[in-house]
Amino acid sequence: MSLVPTTGELGPVVVIGAGLIGASIGMALTSAGERVHLVDASNVHAVVAAGLGAGLIDFPQTETIRLVVVATPPSAVVQEVLEALELSPDAVVTDVSSVKGRVLDKLRATGADISRYVGSHPMAGSQFAGPLTASGELFVDRTWVVCPRLDNAPEHVERVRQLARTCGARLVEMEAADHDEAVARVSHVPQLMSSLTAGNLRDVPERHLQLAGQGVRDVTRIAASDPVLWRQIIQANSSAIRLELEGIRRDLDELFVVLDDPTGLEGFMARGRDGARTLPGKHGSGPVEWESVVIEIPDTPGALAHLFADIGAEGVNVEDLSIEHGSTREVGYLSVQVSPTQAEHLREVMADKGWTLRVV
Amino acid sequence: MSLVPTTGELGPVVVIGAGLIGASIGMALTSAGERVHLVDASNVHAVVAAGLGAGLIDFPQTETIRLVVVATPPSAVVQEVLEALELSPDAVVTDVSSVKGRVLDKLRATGADISRYVGSHPMAGSQFAGPLTASGELFVDRTWVVCPRLDNAPEHVERVRQLARTCGARLVEMEAADHDEAVARVSHVPQLMSSLTAGNLRDVPERHLQLAGQGVRDVTRIAASDPVLWRQIIQANSSAIRLELEGIRRDLDELFVVLDDPTGLEGFMARGRDGARTLPGKHGSGPVEWESVVIEIPDTPGALAHLFADIGAEGVNVEDLSIEHGSTREVGYLSVQVSPTQAEHLREVMADKGWTLRVV
Repeated sequence: MSLVPTTGELGPVVVIGAGLIGASIGMALTSAGERVHLVDASNVHAVVAAGLGAGLIDFPQTETIRLVVVATPPSAVVQEVLEALELSPDAVVTDVSSVKGRVLDKLRATGADISRYVGSHPMAGSQFAGPLTASGELFVDRTWVVCPRLDNAPEHVERVRQLARTCGARLVEMEAADHDEAVARVSHVPQLMSSLTAGNLRDVPERHLQLAGQGVRDVTRIAASDPVLWRQIIQANSSAIRLELEGIRRDLDELFVVLDDPTGLEGFMARGRDGARTLPGKHGSGPVEWESVVIEIPDTPGALAHLFADIGAEGVNVEDLSIEHGSTREVGYLSVQVSPTQAEHLREVMADKGWTLRVV
Repeated sequence: MSLVPTTGELGPVVVIGAGLIGASIGMALTSAGERVHLVDASNVHAVVAAGLGAGLIDFPQTETIRLVVVATPPSAVVQEVLEALELSPDAVVTDVSSVKGRVLDKLRATGADISRYVGSHPMAGSQFAGPLTASGELFVDRTWVVCPRLDNAPEHVERVRQLARTCGARLVEMEAADHDEAVARVSHVPQLMSSLTAGNLRDVPERHLQLAGQGVRDVTRIAASDPVLWRQIIQANSSAIRLELEGIRRDLDELFVVLDDPTGLEGFMARGRDGARTLPGKHGSGPVEWESVVIEIPDTPGALAHLFADIGAEGVNVEDLSIEHGSTREVGYLSVQVSPTQAEHLREVMADKGWTLRVV
């Protein structure tokens, strides 16, 4: 998926908060032909975002505004949404904050009419903040959650859906509470675990740190994120997070018990592997089922190089390779994982070239 | 650094265990001109590794062998080292297992003469196992720890150093116990934390998993590693790991306390950020000090695009960009982080082009 030109049917759009997310939305909408107006408490941020092509820094007539996107830090969202609803009588107002339930509760508690508010959450970002690293492509193929409610008019919800689509995102709809439980599990708790792991490195002497490889870098990468932003996100979702963390603490307690028990420890590691495997493919397609093409590994080294070359020449996308052992130690099979649509073709071609295939 | 041709001065080398690490060592040494002989309990692995150019599958005369590299799974290392010492009277024997203390203790406990054994640990690998993903470049610029002892002859230690150098690795020397404490901190505990985080995902429903982004994928990537291999590594280093995990448990207990306390939670996140920042640069160079070139951000959007273009045209490596605010809200500065050797040049050029620089 890529950016969808909308030639102005969505705007004028006002983006409040010209940080990474706000500026990126502005860039995506501007490239799609929308008229975007940027507002930021820091004039410098607005100027930089505008300079990158995220929109204009003048302000439109309030009654013409069709969509307001509140992209401020979480602590300012409720106030900005209320002001936008009041100021722009025909606009749909959305926000992009990472926790939806608390924003909604607070908006409801004011007693204001919030039927033109539709919460949303584009699941994109980086450990960088501010407009300098913004990109109109930030949301392409990323998930964008929209949280419609019964008191929203369908055409208002549609305007927010169109915002997400115009930015190239993959639209998902959920209730606010369900969204918050989901992000506690797949985003907030992993963030806290990364911080916990990284925090443990701060007193490690340099001669030990020089042994750090890619693994610890991956685990701790998101711990480098902005503590102020994340403090706000975590606290807005603390009850869902607390529940999840209790599960983590039970598993950690169990780890202490099984640390010297081979079977128990292997079970612990295997549960982690199974958990890692539940994550859908990067395009959100769900765990993909590949099909195996299984070819006998020839006895001689030279022939094996030919086998690899023959597989490579077919231009099929090899997703994984593994060795399977035959019933005796001396026979082995190369198991090539390919998409089900390519498997039969590869089998035919390899058989034609004289390789022995194992029928699965 | 890259592979160093040695034209046969290190070998004949016997590599026992033709998995990812063993086969990769074989490929690196073979490309460097060394004669490598591969041994694996699975003939298929040896044949595949040989087919990829990792060495020969015949066995040399034992008295000619100069170096034996034991690259079997951890549980087999002690036995293989003892056999190699006995079989090859002139060979230096090393292993590549991830924990050095327990191997050494067990070797010593046998009462055998182990003065020709020099432990080592190439810090490279992947979540894949077996020879299929092996590469002669696997160790280039990666850390390779060698653990010399007082009972080792200097020329024997030198042979293992040369093994690491020939594979293109960055050599680090440490005592076994110190090495094990280091890897508990920067490798084994991060691995367990990744497994702990991923294990918590296994019962998450699919509609929640579709919100997973890059963050949780990074944190849980290494949890997909082989549970059997990791169970062996963790148990071989369990006492050092237990100590570290106790620190983690204290920090987790504290997290429960501060979860609803803004200052405390921000402190927790900040400690994580500080910890993540202690990790040295990817080439092991330690945290790099960049120098800031600070340029006033012009008032007009069009001028900002020129500013970016002018910086880009200079071809300096921009390591980071940030916005600094002036004493009033209206003035901002673009802070460009570059290497100290390039900073002065960039300042001069930008001033020549008419930009206003802030003197730091």
